[in-house]
Amino acid sequence: MILKGNFLYTPELGQLTIREQEYLVVKDGLVVDIYKELPKEYAGEQVIDYGNAIILPAFNDLHIHAPQMVNRGVGFDQELLPWLETYTFPLEARYKDMDFADRSYKRFLNRLWAYGTMRFSAFGTLHKEGTWHLMELTEQSGMSAYIGKVNMDRNSPDILREETAASLADTEELICRCNEQLKNVRFILTPRFVPSTTAELMTGLGKLGEKYNLPVQSHLSENRSEVAWVKELHPDIPTYTQVYQDFGLMRPGQTIMAHSIYLSDAEKETLKERHVMLAHCAQSNADLSSGIMPLRRNLEMGLDCCIASDVAGSHTVAMNRHLAMSIEVSKLNWLSHPEEAALTLPEALYLATKKSGSFFGKVGSFEPGYEFDALVVETDDVDGKLPRNPFERLELFVYDGDDRDIKVRYCRGKEVKKPFDLKDNL
Amino acid sequence: MILKGNFLYTPELGQLTIREQEYLVVKDGLVVDIYKELPKEYAGEQVIDYGNAIILPAFNDLHIHAPQMVNRGVGFDQELLPWLETYTFPLEARYKDMDFADRSYKRFLNRLWAYGTMRFSAFGTLHKEGTWHLMELTEQSGMSAYIGKVNMDRNSPDILREETAASLADTEELICRCNEQLKNVRFILTPRFVPSTTAELMTGLGKLGEKYNLPVQSHLSENRSEVAWVKELHPDIPTYTQVYQDFGLMRPGQTIMAHSIYLSDAEKETLKERHVMLAHCAQSNADLSSGIMPLRRNLEMGLDCCIASDVAGSHTVAMNRHLAMSIEVSKLNWLSHPEEAALTLPEALYLATKKSGSFFGKVGSFEPGYEFDALVVETDDVDGKLPRNPFERLELFVYDGDDRDIKVRYCRGKEVKKPFDLKDNL
Repeated sequence: MILKGNFLYTPELGQLTIREQEYLVVKDGLVVDIYKELPKEYAGEQVIDYGNAIILPAFNDLHIHAPQMVNRGVGFDQELLPWLETYTFPLEARYKDMDFADRSYKRFLNRLWAYGTMRFSAFGTLHKEGTWHLMELTEQSGMSAYIGKVNMDRNSPDILREETAASLADTEELICRCNEQLKNVRFILTPRFVPSTTAELMTGLGKLGEKYNLPVQSHLSENRSEVAWVKELHPDIPTYTQVYQDFGLMRPGQTIMAHSIYLSDAEKETLKERHVMLAHCAQSNADLSSGIMPLRRNLEMGLDCCIASDVAGSHTVAMNRHLAMSIEVSKLNWLSHPEEAALTLPEALYLATKKSGSFFGKVGSFEPGYEFDALVVETDDVDGKLPRNPFERLELFVYDGDDRDIKVRYCRGKEVKKPFDLKDNL
Repeated sequence: MILKGNFLYTPELGQLTIREQEYLVVKDGLVVDIYKELPKEYAGEQVIDYGNAIILPAFNDLHIHAPQMVNRGVGFDQELLPWLETYTFPLEARYKDMDFADRSYKRFLNRLWAYGTMRFSAFGTLHKEGTWHLMELTEQSGMSAYIGKVNMDRNSPDILREETAASLADTEELICRCNEQLKNVRFILTPRFVPSTTAELMTGLGKLGEKYNLPVQSHLSENRSEVAWVKELHPDIPTYTQVYQDFGLMRPGQTIMAHSIYLSDAEKETLKERHVMLAHCAQSNADLSSGIMPLRRNLEMGLDCCIASDVAGSHTVAMNRHLAMSIEVSKLNWLSHPEEAALTLPEALYLATKKSGSFFGKVGSFEPGYEFDALVVETDDVDGKLPRNPFERLELFVYDGDDRDIKVRYCRGKEVKKPFDLKDNL
């Protein structure tokens, strides 16, 4: 497959490469290279010409709660813990109903597709069959994902609490089904967060991680009350980070921890050594009055950070808006911390494409050997009267674009069409 | 006209009235009242039944730069003053070209219409004919507005600087044309901001204000460098606020001042006494690294504040997103200023409907005697499987709704259809 157009991608943090009106060759789903002139060996082959559109790596969202998408924005006059009790847990309890799960998860996948997220790492619910259905639907969609059944056996309402042994058994069953039957969906261990999971459950999950060599995702240090609660629950373990670590849930290079706002230097050292991916969720952290992750300092320390949505702690799956919000919050932070430079747009793009894509392998860039995941984006130029360079088109799309601006989506070298035919306003 | 549905409106700051499945009667463009049962006198008349949709007062945006809409998001890696020089002034200079002005202003009006802003107060450019064209197009659209020709005769690039006398003459000509020919568009005096307008020009504008009894709009204390610059330009006048005041540009009850972030208590007293409307532009103030207006303190002091977009200092005309951002920024502010409570959704709605509407008279509420400006909004309920109360529907719309969720728009009791037929992705 040969595409012609304006390619934008970010080989490094802060570096934006723009290849205007060049040719990108894809073979077996991978980028061969980008060429100024089409090499002779491809002469005569069909070229898909995207004209003045810009072509970006598709977004990867490493922290999202699939069952909560339908609740985005609901209950936002509350903080994290009461919000969970009042709105989120009752909604998640409904996913024992497979009809509801089917309708909701199809909406979820349609919406991610629409806004250009081709890969994600999602929390399901604690329900085995509901979560399995999300996995199957994702496989059908043509996108790629890590998906986990949530584990929670303490401090949860009756409608949403498991027996420890059953939680582990269900998890193992899903791991095996997933390994046997699915190709583009991988299982990820998903203890909800320390307050919801007993030591016994965390120990069991740590063992499953080792047995099947699995990645892990959870929440870390999102809110001050939550951090204090973890300290109460585990008074003998010095830090929140170390709780996960002690139970085998900080698997090196295979762990995503969302939020990670209130961390000590010692915790940061551990997270750095283990190459834990910190999912920065700026919009959620504002919506739930959680705080501001010191992103610039974390990046300067060499921590692995990416930008993620955390729907429905936040209120949109649209990753372009999370780029904008991450930049905006970093600017507000800069006003009171002038030594912490604000995030730039090329940096934000890197954190939501190549950096987050690294959790899937060579994903999120157009360098040779990368899987070809891409969005073809058109922006208005006032009938050609206000010509834009590719960077300005990127700005227009990130700051005020929506699904209607994305004309074509690719994942692993194949065009992905709208997954499900629903009345969902997209 | 009789409408049936779920009406939501905000009679006071913090008060949200919800009238479920009731009847709203409109006569001569004004709300007669809302009734649980339709009074006998209306028996047999046609009722428009909006089912489960919610019906809100339409948004009023009291600070927006019409010519800049097409640039939303462009150049946001810069602060206010370099952003003006590099991106905004060159764009505004293009509005001497009437063909460009026509295409761009039609897009502007379509987009405001789409996202439910039925009334606004806009800056044009310094060009007389371009600004007049915006006024005519707005009149055609069926919406209502204050629109001003921008005045700027110093510290501006050659392409965008007027002679003082010509600026005043052009302004007076437009005031007269507007008074004679337009019904739903009123002229508003629009000195760009102190650094762009000489004392002579400000004096002349103040006199025009008195002669024609006109409202005024400008910028006040947006950015620390700008505040310092005003002090340099007018070393003999103690405050930024007083500069406008001394030149007759703080007209009581008829003045909108955008941003107003860095104000002394003395300035606040003046602004309160004169009932100046402070347009809080939270997204813009983040995008241009300007700061955070102490909204809660200002409200508690009894200052008149509303929520506005400031496009293209911000990146979207969608007022629902400005409500969300105002709430988010207030939550971040609360984290470091726990005595300043975060804004709630009902409060934000009030500031963008009834409070901002007050600049137009009795506008922005469904109380008897108010002009009927409304949006009929539908939100997804997962095929009826996730029923929502009207407040939750409001949350869904404010936090992740877009133009596609707004099914019908009313202004002054009449349905307003898409103003212009353009390929503009709406």
